[in-house]
Amino acid sequence: MSSQWGQLFRISTWGESHGGGVGVVIDGCPPRLPLTAEDIQLDLDRRRPGQSDIVTPRKELDRCEILSGVFNGLTLGSPISIMVRNEDARPEAYSEMAGKYRPSHADYTYDAKYGIRNWQGGGRSSARETIGRVAAAAVARKVLAALAPGLEVIAWVDSVQHLQASVNPDTVTSADVESNIVRTADPNAVGPMTDLIRQIRSDGNSVGGTVACVIRNCPPGLGEPVFDRLEADLAKAMLSLPATKGFEIGSGFAGTLLTGREHNDAFRMHDGRVRTTSNRSGGVQGGISNGEPITFKVAFKPVATIMSEQDTVTALPHEDTTLKGRGRHDPCVLPRAVPMVEAMSLLVLTDHLLRHRAQCP
Amino acid sequence: MSSQWGQLFRISTWGESHGGGVGVVIDGCPPRLPLTAEDIQLDLDRRRPGQSDIVTPRKELDRCEILSGVFNGLTLGSPISIMVRNEDARPEAYSEMAGKYRPSHADYTYDAKYGIRNWQGGGRSSARETIGRVAAAAVARKVLAALAPGLEVIAWVDSVQHLQASVNPDTVTSADVESNIVRTADPNAVGPMTDLIRQIRSDGNSVGGTVACVIRNCPPGLGEPVFDRLEADLAKAMLSLPATKGFEIGSGFAGTLLTGREHNDAFRMHDGRVRTTSNRSGGVQGGISNGEPITFKVAFKPVATIMSEQDTVTALPHEDTTLKGRGRHDPCVLPRAVPMVEAMSLLVLTDHLLRHRAQCP
Amino acid sequence: MSSQWGQLFRISTWGESHGGGVGVVIDGCPPRLPLTAEDIQLDLDRRRPGQSDIVTPRKELDRCEILSGVFNGLTLGSPISIMVRNEDARPEAYSEMAGKYRPSHADYTYDAKYGIRNWQGGGRSSARETIGRVAAAAVARKVLAALAPGLEVIAWVDSVQHLQASVNPDTVTSADVESNIVRTADPNAVGPMTDLIRQIRSDGNSVGGTVACVIRNCPPGLGEPVFDRLEADLAKAMLSLPATKGFEIGSGFAGTLLTGREHNDAFRMHDGRVRTTSNRSGGVQGGISNGEPITFKVAFKPVATIMSEQDTVTALPHEDTTLKGRGRHDPCVLPRAVPMVEAMSLLVLTDHLLRHRAQCP
Amino acid sequence: MSSQWGQLFRISTWGESHGGGVGVVIDGCPPRLPLTAEDIQLDLDRRRPGQSDIVTPRKELDRCEILSGVFNGLTLGSPISIMVRNEDARPEAYSEMAGKYRPSHADYTYDAKYGIRNWQGGGRSSARETIGRVAAAAVARKVLAALAPGLEVIAWVDSVQHLQASVNPDTVTSADVESNIVRTADPNAVGPMTDLIRQIRSDGNSVGGTVACVIRNCPPGLGEPVFDRLEADLAKAMLSLPATKGFEIGSGFAGTLLTGREHNDAFRMHDGRVRTTSNRSGGVQGGISNGEPITFKVAFKPVATIMSEQDTVTALPHEDTTLKGRGRHDPCVLPRAVPMVEAMSLLVLTDHLLRHRAQCP
Repeated sequence: MSSQWGQLFRISTWGESHGGGVGVVIDGCPPRLPLTAEDIQLDLDRRRPGQSDIVTPRKELDRCEILSGVFNGLTLGSPISIMVRNEDARPEAYSEMAGKYRPSHADYTYDAKYGIRNWQGGGRSSARETIGRVAAAAVARKVLAALAPGLEVIAWVDSVQHLQASVNPDTVTSADVESNIVRTADPNAVGPMTDLIRQIRSDGNSVGGTVACVIRNCPPGLGEPVFDRLEADLAKAMLSLPATKGFEIGSGFAGTLLTGREHNDAFRMHDGRVRTTSNRSGGVQGGISNGEPITFKVAFKPVATIMSEQDTVTALPHEDTTLKGRGRHDPCVLPRAVPMVEAMSLLVLTDHLLRHRAQCP
Repeated sequence: MSSQWGQLFRISTWGESHGGGVGVVIDGCPPRLPLTAEDIQLDLDRRRPGQSDIVTPRKELDRCEILSGVFNGLTLGSPISIMVRNEDARPEAYSEMAGKYRPSHADYTYDAKYGIRNWQGGGRSSARETIGRVAAAAVARKVLAALAPGLEVIAWVDSVQHLQASVNPDTVTSADVESNIVRTADPNAVGPMTDLIRQIRSDGNSVGGTVACVIRNCPPGLGEPVFDRLEADLAKAMLSLPATKGFEIGSGFAGTLLTGREHNDAFRMHDGRVRTTSNRSGGVQGGISNGEPITFKVAFKPVATIMSEQDTVTALPHEDTTLKGRGRHDPCVLPRAVPMVEAMSLLVLTDHLLRHRAQCP
Repeated sequence: MSSQWGQLFRISTWGESHGGGVGVVIDGCPPRLPLTAEDIQLDLDRRRPGQSDIVTPRKELDRCEILSGVFNGLTLGSPISIMVRNEDARPEAYSEMAGKYRPSHADYTYDAKYGIRNWQGGGRSSARETIGRVAAAAVARKVLAALAPGLEVIAWVDSVQHLQASVNPDTVTSADVESNIVRTADPNAVGPMTDLIRQIRSDGNSVGGTVACVIRNCPPGLGEPVFDRLEADLAKAMLSLPATKGFEIGSGFAGTLLTGREHNDAFRMHDGRVRTTSNRSGGVQGGISNGEPITFKVAFKPVATIMSEQDTVTALPHEDTTLKGRGRHDPCVLPRAVPMVEAMSLLVLTDHLLRHRAQCP
Repeated sequence: MSSQWGQLFRISTWGESHGGGVGVVIDGCPPRLPLTAEDIQLDLDRRRPGQSDIVTPRKELDRCEILSGVFNGLTLGSPISIMVRNEDARPEAYSEMAGKYRPSHADYTYDAKYGIRNWQGGGRSSARETIGRVAAAAVARKVLAALAPGLEVIAWVDSVQHLQASVNPDTVTSADVESNIVRTADPNAVGPMTDLIRQIRSDGNSVGGTVACVIRNCPPGLGEPVFDRLEADLAKAMLSLPATKGFEIGSGFAGTLLTGREHNDAFRMHDGRVRTTSNRSGGVQGGISNGEPITFKVAFKPVATIMSEQDTVTALPHEDTTLKGRGRHDPCVLPRAVPMVEAMSLLVLTDHLLRHRAQCP
């Protein structure tokens, strides 16, 4: 179904940006794992608006409540329901959107598909929807901590428009990423990136870029050919995030410029384990993890809401008109996209780990 | 499940490169559509080896047989089973692979996952597996012809290593693509690309590149947010193909270099329809088709099998060794990847069309 | 997944009897259907405790809240989240169950499966879990009203222990059923059944029986052979309800006493429609509805909680002990089971209706 | 999907009674299990026609071929495709059915649903479809032998019309069942049942009855509340078989005549294990196996094809007519239903075993 992710660690997200709230139900979580609302809140806080001056100033505390599935601080194995109430909603800020489609937003396509849309704040197409994903991923962290100790998922802002960070995926830490409001991990890139986003915001414009991610200490064997290859599910997971336009793993598009002789990763024994001497495969071969770091990048387009007048059409009947963005928007989605990329990675890995142990324990 | 694709038009592929054969079962096909083995053979013939001197010379006729689901030339609505027998198998050509892992192949990861592998010709990880997909996509074509007349899916070789084709996605035709053995659609690129692949082959090396695809006349409304966005399912579909390393839709990675003001697609009325004046969105907004051409690109790495000695390890027990490729392999997967990209696109669209009409007819 | 029902009209229920609450998320609901909390409350009120003196006196108002998926009184097509807070919880009434397994309850098996259980009020195995199903079924009613106008689902208490009601499935009405606290539809059975339940309750004992159900005006063509036959999904739906032990459709077990010559339903034209002159098939042939009334019965065992001392074992470590039921329990689940049987029928029909129109519109 | 069973051990069956053949694809089978075509043939031989004079004399050898998923006699973990070619087809025997609906068959409903049907031999609604299930179940046996050694599934004919067998589910053996052509396990019932079926056959009539089944040594913990309770999936599995009209587990319908005090199964420690002193629960409590024998019964209606003239209607246009059965049919489906009931039980158990170890290993 369209708002569900996962075969065995299955999450069902719900909620619009304006309305009662947003949330998620997690079915299939292993029992007896420690879980508290605070565990989840940590990740939600990284995702929420208002963290710094380079993201939207909306005040959403996003306090979560665990409604089921946990007893005396331990998971029960039954569905875990997590809810975050909506607050600071200002539907009046969106009244013009009731009658006009915002360019490069989902307004027109939702109307085309459903014949109805909640035009307040983007409704279901709002990035606020990702709260359910991030909350579920906090639970996924608990599963991975138990089943794949040592596994790490670290994402960071790899580029903002033309500004490229230089980061070593083998050594980058979460602390590096959280040390700055851009959530890049290259100290030299922090200043220029922050300046660029501030300048773009003051111009009423927006900017995009790429988020890179590394998964370290992933056990070999995850991924389910032929269709549910690990990189295929990662690609879908990332392209299911708002504003994404591309995904590449390992050598990616640049790898097409190499010959096979240059591109192949040789195998060598190292400390009794099969390793590769290079990692252009990006940690995945034949759709299955090989134990090397899994490395990928995701392209995020510039935010569609800009403070300029743009050509568009009215909702119904359709007529040419113009629209100027209003409200409190991110000039750049990247800093808040970092926890979303990590969240989707955690969900993919947890589901595949459970699938793997079902068939090949 | 790992060898199944689709929610409503669900295909189950099976088969290894060596063994009884390969095939597919299609569940959920609408009834009363005309279907013959010849319809399917047309697409299989575009995929099969031995079509030209720039692909593998293996002789596989890949004749398909429809075993069920069709009666008097019409689909019954019950599962359609299609089988292709394996022929021209030369397991002896692979005997060395029984004991050694081919670099950047799936040999090691299959062993790591399953503890067993069919080492003859790549087994399940062989591109031969895609026969089932292509056969199913030929059936999908019939569904789309009935439900979305005018819809076209056209893929072509966009680049071979550094050689870039120049093709207009609004006007390119299947005839353009089929007019040359490379399956590009830029007449000026045919010569250089062919020469490059021949030279690479004679050098015992291999090369990769990109395949571009356009879907024209797709009705607005296809795609199921939040997780089953059309671009998310296309991304997964493409990354599920062997040798793929990247996917981008619309402006893709290059779109991250633009600002929102430059990137947004303005809406304008055109012949009574809502249209966009540019198409950086690539035909998809908020995860749903908007009626514009859907455009995307897929990165294929250079083929892993090369005729050079490479470092690798033995199967079990693991020890360092070397291996030199043998057998009859594609120096470049791109010409045969074109029908695979089209096939996966057709499967995604058909499934989404049925899903859409179930919820929002 | 274990707490999900349906392929296209998919519900995900959550919640334990004690904890934050219970609820459901509905994914795949068609858009633009009218829906209010009051629509749902009507059905919840039929299911809740405390309606009469022959059911549990627990005071649970079970007020529902729609958290998402509805805008201006119409469904959006996005997930509909419905929540009911838990109230009147008295965990202290269950403290003894923390350490002892109630005979013929789920206490032991939950521990055996999950290694943990919420022993307060039955946790996930409580009949309170069915609130989510009944709420979702109220939404299903809206879908059916739009897509299969005239379709009716009516269940009633068919027998209480040895007391058998006599009801004509062709003419029984919901008003007949709701006219008495037993929810049977035979006026002559109301008195004896009520008396029996009161007597059983005063004895600290419990009693079971059967619920019958008829689905009238179901269009021909619903049901998906070979596995998702309509009767197969109805059987699963009914056996997924707490305390059920059997299901039969049409002639059921008694039909095995007839010969084929006696059992077959002859076809005859009637008012231009294909009809059967008898209905031992129970409205379903080959797994597909034939347009005749769908008739089935469900067996409910006597409630496991009784006010007598019984042999049992302690939780951990396991040792022989005894336990006497406490708390406020139903002496007979049947009156409250009637809306549950209807709910599961509505969910089955709605899902099959959407599936049917996806494949064969 | 309609021709798929199972979440993790997922089978996809295909095929009509007349056409290329019938078969199954099994996705998700654990790797490295021994499997040969002979293993499968043993079970197919119990299902096939022509075994004795009380079943259909059709000559179908039903030789199976494993097309994929097995290498050197071991499962690979990739899809296992099994095919049985159709033989001895006599479509001319069915020519009258092209234009007339057989009473209490699926002819009319298939036309009503799909607008087309393969009228030769029942097409997809033929019991021949169960070959795929039985073949898959033979593979399931291998999984269970590895993961739940000692687990036994034994079904037998419990009644033929009014003739009731007396069998002890704790001690019955497969040898008892296979010792006679009726496949009952009560030596005293063999004669009367055989005589009854012969007499019914000679009269051109047909007869039904019940099949009982016991699952012994099932580990506690299988079953996934709330919807995928073990008894719910067993119920669906049985009602998905052709000609079934009812299912009951443990005390079943008769259990509704007891009070709670009489019905409850007390717990007692026995040899260090939690046991129940009676088994009215039928081995399942709260939807989860409790380690006691799982016992259930399935009602099979009398075979619809009889050698008498019956009222019916023509296919299209619909008009009243009559039809007399022809061809070679079973006068009683029960002897051949026994392996089908076992097969569906094996499939349910295997899927639940893999699901259980994914979540709660």
